[in-house]
Amino acid sequence: MTDFSRYDGRATDEMRPVRITRGFTSNPAGSVLVEFGNTRVMCTASIELGVPRFKKDSGEGWLTAEYAMLPAATHERMPRESMRGKVKGRTHEISRLVGRSLRAAVDLSELGENTINIDCDVLQADGGTRTASITGAYVALADAITELKARDVVPGNPLRAPVAAVSVGLIDGHVLLDLPYEEDSRADVDLNVVMTAEGKFVEVQGTGEHGEFGREELNAMLDAAEKGIAELHAAQRAALEG
Amino acid sequence: MTDFSRYDGRATDEMRPVRITRGFTSNPAGSVLVEFGNTRVMCTASIELGVPRFKKDSGEGWLTAEYAMLPAATHERMPRESMRGKVKGRTHEISRLVGRSLRAAVDLSELGENTINIDCDVLQADGGTRTASITGAYVALADAITELKARDVVPGNPLRAPVAAVSVGLIDGHVLLDLPYEEDSRADVDLNVVMTAEGKFVEVQGTGEHGEFGREELNAMLDAAEKGIAELHAAQRAALEG
Amino acid sequence: MTDFSRYDGRATDEMRPVRITRGFTSNPAGSVLVEFGNTRVMCTASIELGVPRFKKDSGEGWLTAEYAMLPAATHERMPRESMRGKVKGRTHEISRLVGRSLRAAVDLSELGENTINIDCDVLQADGGTRTASITGAYVALADAITELKARDVVPGNPLRAPVAAVSVGLIDGHVLLDLPYEEDSRADVDLNVVMTAEGKFVEVQGTGEHGEFGREELNAMLDAAEKGIAELHAAQRAALEG
Amino acid sequence: MTDFSRYDGRATDEMRPVRITRGFTSNPAGSVLVEFGNTRVMCTASIELGVPRFKKDSGEGWLTAEYAMLPAATHERMPRESMRGKVKGRTHEISRLVGRSLRAAVDLSELGENTINIDCDVLQADGGTRTASITGAYVALADAITELKARDVVPGNPLRAPVAAVSVGLIDGHVLLDLPYEEDSRADVDLNVVMTAEGKFVEVQGTGEHGEFGREELNAMLDAAEKGIAELHAAQRAALEG
Amino acid sequence: MTDFSRYDGRATDEMRPVRITRGFTSNPAGSVLVEFGNTRVMCTASIELGVPRFKKDSGEGWLTAEYAMLPAATHERMPRESMRGKVKGRTHEISRLVGRSLRAAVDLSELGENTINIDCDVLQADGGTRTASITGAYVALADAITELKARDVVPGNPLRAPVAAVSVGLIDGHVLLDLPYEEDSRADVDLNVVMTAEGKFVEVQGTGEHGEFGREELNAMLDAAEKGIAELHAAQRAALEG
Amino acid sequence: MTDFSRYDGRATDEMRPVRITRGFTSNPAGSVLVEFGNTRVMCTASIELGVPRFKKDSGEGWLTAEYAMLPAATHERMPRESMRGKVKGRTHEISRLVGRSLRAAVDLSELGENTINIDCDVLQADGGTRTASITGAYVALADAITELKARDVVPGNPLRAPVAAVSVGLIDGHVLLDLPYEEDSRADVDLNVVMTAEGKFVEVQGTGEHGEFGREELNAMLDAAEKGIAELHAAQRAALEG
Repeated sequence: MTDFSRYDGRATDEMRPVRITRGFTSNPAGSVLVEFGNTRVMCTASIELGVPRFKKDSGEGWLTAEYAMLPAATHERMPRESMRGKVKGRTHEISRLVGRSLRAAVDLSELGENTINIDCDVLQADGGTRTASITGAYVALADAITELKARDVVPGNPLRAPVAAVSVGLIDGHVLLDLPYEEDSRADVDLNVVMTAEGKFVEVQGTGEHGEFGREELNAMLDAAEKGIAELHAAQRAALEG
Repeated sequence: MTDFSRYDGRATDEMRPVRITRGFTSNPAGSVLVEFGNTRVMCTASIELGVPRFKKDSGEGWLTAEYAMLPAATHERMPRESMRGKVKGRTHEISRLVGRSLRAAVDLSELGENTINIDCDVLQADGGTRTASITGAYVALADAITELKARDVVPGNPLRAPVAAVSVGLIDGHVLLDLPYEEDSRADVDLNVVMTAEGKFVEVQGTGEHGEFGREELNAMLDAAEKGIAELHAAQRAALEG
Repeated sequence: MTDFSRYDGRATDEMRPVRITRGFTSNPAGSVLVEFGNTRVMCTASIELGVPRFKKDSGEGWLTAEYAMLPAATHERMPRESMRGKVKGRTHEISRLVGRSLRAAVDLSELGENTINIDCDVLQADGGTRTASITGAYVALADAITELKARDVVPGNPLRAPVAAVSVGLIDGHVLLDLPYEEDSRADVDLNVVMTAEGKFVEVQGTGEHGEFGREELNAMLDAAEKGIAELHAAQRAALEG
Repeated sequence: MTDFSRYDGRATDEMRPVRITRGFTSNPAGSVLVEFGNTRVMCTASIELGVPRFKKDSGEGWLTAEYAMLPAATHERMPRESMRGKVKGRTHEISRLVGRSLRAAVDLSELGENTINIDCDVLQADGGTRTASITGAYVALADAITELKARDVVPGNPLRAPVAAVSVGLIDGHVLLDLPYEEDSRADVDLNVVMTAEGKFVEVQGTGEHGEFGREELNAMLDAAEKGIAELHAAQRAALEG
Repeated sequence: MTDFSRYDGRATDEMRPVRITRGFTSNPAGSVLVEFGNTRVMCTASIELGVPRFKKDSGEGWLTAEYAMLPAATHERMPRESMRGKVKGRTHEISRLVGRSLRAAVDLSELGENTINIDCDVLQADGGTRTASITGAYVALADAITELKARDVVPGNPLRAPVAAVSVGLIDGHVLLDLPYEEDSRADVDLNVVMTAEGKFVEVQGTGEHGEFGREELNAMLDAAEKGIAELHAAQRAALEG
Repeated sequence: MTDFSRYDGRATDEMRPVRITRGFTSNPAGSVLVEFGNTRVMCTASIELGVPRFKKDSGEGWLTAEYAMLPAATHERMPRESMRGKVKGRTHEISRLVGRSLRAAVDLSELGENTINIDCDVLQADGGTRTASITGAYVALADAITELKARDVVPGNPLRAPVAAVSVGLIDGHVLLDLPYEEDSRADVDLNVVMTAEGKFVEVQGTGEHGEFGREELNAMLDAAEKGIAELHAAQRAALEG
């Protein structure tokens, strides 16, 4: 089981090259280009004074996230969701995942009644777009909070421990870390894991559409995820210190 | 940690009363009312000859699922999605989960080019509507496949091992099985688990919006889920034999 | 003309068995399952403090109604309106009819600035879904108003005389009361009548898409409707006293 | 009860001046401007070769109708439905009424597999827009069928007996024919009647939102409607012969 | 190049007959039927007290415009945009052009916090619908402002110099003024020009989808446009004085 | 008039630095990042075999274009159009302009029945996004056609003379080339010009919402545009040769 040969020559528990570029664009408070191999996502964090209605007068802030693919990000161009007039279920699902994950990285009670809008727009898709989005968005979030504090609108210290995410898959019994599209599309099981730098899970989503999985396999996949996420947290730290 | 007192008097690892009523309505091939305590969902499986375009000439069938809440299912009435003109992200997310879970219970290559449409409509919501939906929909699916075979349109034996689902939560360090709304709304961690009767995972979705969780807690929650799901599989068997 | 044989053996002026079950679900203020033979509709009345903008500061309340079919209610499954993104004209038309009919049963000036939302969701359709909806919704409305008064938010006595509805059809010159789908689909003329328990019309809608009708035929159909509605008012009374 | 004074001086059973102008525009096969007093509706009938899918290979034709108000047709400008992205229930309801009424005037089995699209666009609204629409649309339909026959695409004689429509109201016990907006908005009962020139009903829609009505009142209103419709049929004949 | 023969016999720099009818309908403050040959557009200007949110407390008014085609206005009937649920890009583009052009004719700072809604609905289309719309809408605007002043709600004199518009095309090197549909559809270049009565441009839109154009050709087309617009300003003056 | 001082120190007839990066992403046949100063647009050209219905069996190809802004591209984040469910008129207008402009650069009769989809997604907006889009999209188009020819699916030589675009504005009588947002928002007149490398106009759009303009000013602005476009054509050539 140890000799699975990945088409890009990586070891089964090896991440693709990860790059995190801060200040990718200049208008949003935080703007990051994150790359997991050929997957490239522009992650921004924009600040809005005030909160949505359901948070009014709560003394707390809010964070919301939207994920989308540019039409030409995929191998075959996909119709633009704004033109179809409908947002796909997959898009909603990932937007919600990104939002929940990033809210774990912020203490809303320390944010004051401000809103942070996270946007993750996939420029080029090659698998792992949701995990790259979460990982990059944390860095954009950190930059946005720095700016909020510099502007003196944030009363406390809202930034919590870093959050990063990685995918793990199971193909023919092999646990593979950080799947590109070619592997993702034929994986029996697909697991997305979001963790804090303190080693806690924020989200664990394992799906076995092409095959079920047992507790042992789950544990092996979680082990691989932990390894990958540790490397992502290191990359986030390096970017934020850089 | 063992003396957590649940407001309905259940033990922490005790399911709410589960009822599965087959033949709830007569038009669809399969129609089930499933109840987890006060949560009541009408699950139907309708047969459609032919498959969607992306499956044409594949020799395989397809299964799709839609989940929705009736407007008066919740404590406060919610606006009807058809009138708002938009389907909420939560609805999309659960519909997709139900679809993936039920596709694990059917061998599409044995179904012929037929489509099964699963509809899960929540009549009364009290937590666990997605897990009740999956558990009830399997029984409706089994009935629909029996009818397809009786009509002689199915070439093979598409029904695979039963699939059932349960939620587990973490409140103040206590692992609680099958959360009603009152507990669900204040849980630190919420885990939905879908398993086959053969003890394999189909889907594991753990979310820690109000608090992260460690590997040990995950394992304790998975243990509780396995116990609950075993009881649900027994209820499914009893319903199908009844 | 007197020996028309109905496929379910009923006399031409005989209603199908009518059942009205109160307290069908527990969240809405009023919740009723109404059955006209195989037609089954869940009718709820939900209370909302406040009124829509056009009624603000009028001192009066408002009542609104929405009718919908579950996708698997009909013999052939119909696409879900929320997923199509469009509500069908038929749905709008029936929602408006139910709303007008129920507003005849409530004195808005006695309701205070409160809103009652009626929802009629068809679980199983076999003809007469709009008339069953109106008949059942009145009972749900009565329960909701009882609750509003118990909560002390209603200043007056808003409940007016009961309202019920029935369909009558003309097939080959025969006047038939309370058409199931099989008869409805081949009727020359279709008449829906809404009446108060005081014997007054609230709504009369006669349509002759497959054949026109004369004044005498209209009168014969109205006679049959009056007979049927008297029985429905008795069923409503029995349910409310039960 | 006989001395009700109408604000425009008409007798209670007197129609407003009716004008029917054929050839109002030149692109559609039939184009009519119909005026009931200040109510002005442009009614067109357009020919389309082929039929919708549900009529394919039936050997029959189809007729469909759409009704709409221009935004500035009413006293207060109303938002344009295309810009709101939603068609109002009232618009759907009237479009369906016009379609059913005009289908009564055409024998679809004589039309061949052709479609007639009726459009009724209200240029100026002063009550009775739906009845004027039906009355004018019949004339446009007749012209369109003449053109279809001239083009030799219609196998038979699809035009049936003329169809016209009028509204009748009840105000303080007085039966009033052909209500302008000022009367319509305060009528206790509103009855729309569609009849053929042979004296048969196609549609009878009586609504008592501000007050119920008895059988005698219904009969008195139907009498008034018959008188008005006879005049409308005369106006249609005059226009078609003119 | 001077002997181009137009199918309706006009000289290359000759306008079609222009008619401007004020008071076409009576509900809006200004209502005009404008005709450029067979092109007929109903232009209305409706007054609304108050301004959109982005103009609140600015002390200024606002003007907005919507353009639309009736479905049967064109030779082949076009689907109704409200029923398709989507407004076409062409419609948006022309609505925006009409709005910008008319805002040039009104001094918003003199209007007070009032809004003028321009509606241009094409009853019959034969080329030049956008230029006819602008030309007619100015007259409706003038009437609406007169009414606003009569009602004493306008503090100043918001009406500025008249604005009119015309199209010019290039076919086989010939400059043609005021194109009907037959010419428009085969023109190499299409130029729409909006000018004030003071001889200034408000908008110049030249498009060469079927062929590019040089500076000389542009100048020749602008010369033709100026000539046509002078005639349109005369027609506007005549209508307003009439 | 010669001493207007631009906030970024440029001469009035000086372009911002222009950068054109080919191969910006790898999935589409052509992918270009174009920068006009701080304005950055990702322009892609994707190939689709086959043509839309209205071009079927014409022997010709088609080109279509969509323009959009990422939500965080502007200084203040703008709501995502896919989430609003409506595409703004401005977006439609620019998409149509880009499509028309690029169709001028391709001979559809030489393309075979293939479709080229142009996508221009603004990553960072600082004025001139539509002119940068057109300029960059031409380069992506050239690359896509090279690929189509390499794949042997294009029968002829569809690429025509290069097309580029620039904006010119008038502020206080000064003609300014290539406006950044700060100037664009306060310009009296805004002119967008699209030209071929052969010095012909494809599109001329001049708008004077904050002030009209005379023929002389138009000519001065066109002169500036020609100068800027010559530089853009040089940049396109350099990129394509690079």
